Amino acid sequence: MRIVVLAGGIGGARFLRGLKQAAPDAEITVVGNTGDDIHLFGLKVCPDLDTVMYTLGGGINEEQGWGRLDESFTVKEELAAYGVGPEWFGLGDRDFATHIVRTQMLGAGFPLSAVTEALCARWQPGVRLLPMSDDRVETHVAIEVDGEQKAVHFQEYWVKLRASVDAKAVVPVGAEAAKPAPGVLEAIAAADVILFPPSNPVVSVGTILAVPGIREAIVEAGAAGTPVVGLSPIVGDAPVRGMADKVLAAVGVEATATAVALHYGSELVDGWLVDTVDAGAVADVEAAGIRCRAVPLMMTDVEATAAMAREALALAEEVRG
Amino acid sequence: MRIVVLAGGIGGARFLRGLKQAAPDAEITVVGNTGDDIHLFGLKVCPDLDTVMYTLGGGINEEQGWGRLDESFTVKEELAAYGVGPEWFGLGDRDFATHIVRTQMLGAGFPLSAVTEALCARWQPGVRLLPMSDDRVETHVAIEVDGEQKAVHFQEYWVKLRASVDAKAVVPVGAEAAKPAPGVLEAIAAADVILFPPSNPVVSVGTILAVPGIREAIVEAGAAGTPVVGLSPIVGDAPVRGMADKVLAAVGVEATATAVALHYGSELVDGWLVDTVDAGAVADVEAAGIRCRAVPLMMTDVEATAAMAREALALAEEVRG
Repeated sequence: MRIVVLAGGIGGARFLRGLKQAAPDAEITVVGNTGDDIHLFGLKVCPDLDTVMYTLGGGINEEQGWGRLDESFTVKEELAAYGVGPEWFGLGDRDFATHIVRTQMLGAGFPLSAVTEALCARWQPGVRLLPMSDDRVETHVAIEVDGEQKAVHFQEYWVKLRASVDAKAVVPVGAEAAKPAPGVLEAIAAADVILFPPSNPVVSVGTILAVPGIREAIVEAGAAGTPVVGLSPIVGDAPVRGMADKVLAAVGVEATATAVALHYGSELVDGWLVDTVDAGAVADVEAAGIRCRAVPLMMTDVEATAAMAREALALAEEVRG
Repeated sequence: MRIVVLAGGIGGARFLRGLKQAAPDAEITVVGNTGDDIHLFGLKVCPDLDTVMYTLGGGINEEQGWGRLDESFTVKEELAAYGVGPEWFGLGDRDFATHIVRTQMLGAGFPLSAVTEALCARWQPGVRLLPMSDDRVETHVAIEVDGEQKAVHFQEYWVKLRASVDAKAVVPVGAEAAKPAPGVLEAIAAADVILFPPSNPVVSVGTILAVPGIREAIVEAGAAGTPVVGLSPIVGDAPVRGMADKVLAAVGVEATATAVALHYGSELVDGWLVDTVDAGAVADVEAAGIRCRAVPLMMTDVEATAAMAREALALAEEVRG
């Protein structure tokens, strides 16, 4: 079975770990969000790709969900001693090595997809990890600070400001001119199942869908009979983790399991899983033409996550009919 | 008193520490060798500038003479885990931060001289540290391996091969097109004394002199009455440290205190210090028109080094007459 998953960072990575356990023989292709990518200290940092790679490769800091296990921060402290920031982005020494290798390869002319493949040769994530695009896309967030409108990089909004001010708009800068990375459209066309994990629908899955061609390919695959199933990132009217509600508001979507399903819409998704606490949403989602089931959606451990993945695959088969 | 010093790495840096103690009120300008510079992991590494900066700024690993005190090697180990080398160059985590800042600034368009000044703002070396040039110069060494002629970067010859094969030639690639960094010629013209520390006469001082304009400026300053005094890097027919004999052979110069003095020549240097064990060389050096004294030249500690610096300054005054 060939499964394509559109993934952001922590939520996507954890879901993938469960999916691998639920479907050990599946060929899984992950289309990773690169809108969060940022240049720090002259180095190219790809937080979402790395979170997927480290999580599936056994190198993740479990507790925080991102960054490396057993990490130290000598380089960052030294950079601070030079007065070079930002200090709000937690790059550890082990993590720095990844960005150094990536930046060196990009500088030598390799596209991000080839670089990601090379990095994965070490981590052996057990999935094929593709960036959504080899082209630069940067998610910017429009905010108002002291009455002044400004746009900041998503990482500055998310990590530095901790989404403490309202997002007026979320713009994937460069997306309209970006092309899907080699293999992305082919994987979608060849997929038996397409899954949207409980990643952020705006700044993770939404950014991937903003790359021209990707949304269209998924709609086309769905029309041709490939089930497209999503899992709600909202449980009981609050994000499972992160601050998805902040960016949902920016696109005029309520932070409810139903609203996110309708935001994707029946053109894009055929099936939708909500948490058991949101069982009341099932009827509304189905009324919109999306098959819906209420199952436990908290990724408390790999077992629970694998059960979620099995439910998603079961719903896919049900949709396929 | 304005002193200009042409310095390589360890020998130059240690001499400068003694000079600062010997002449605490002097304005010291250091023209640093950048022929040893190398790109590693996509980062610009300037070993000699950093050794001077770390040594005078109190951040040096005293025992090895280069690199940072209290160093760790996490980044390097991680790079090796990615299969990315070279592993023979010992970049530590603290040191990496310096190269990251430098590379970022160079990428932003700052010349190396401005970058060096910015790095020194942290280290406060107590001297004005200038790269010999903002242009790229790379010392290559011609060697023969298994009957095959090849040219390797100086660092590969020095650090990886540990000068274990004969150097057929030493070529400062790019030197002929390089311009002295801003301030170099002005400092030489304004100097009260010019010193050649016991740095390598071929790959350190020799490379600096290979930048068109620098040798000429020193000769001109000397002709105008500025004493130019050197200290022999050879004591008792062997290099004080390092493998200077290997590269001296490549330029057809014997590894003796006399031969190095004659290699510089009376056009360039007015005074020359040899070690007391080489007292027999004094007459030969003076016969070549270079004022010569035999004094202890082992930089065993800062006190001994300061004494050497005082001898050099005393010889300069004697030459000035």
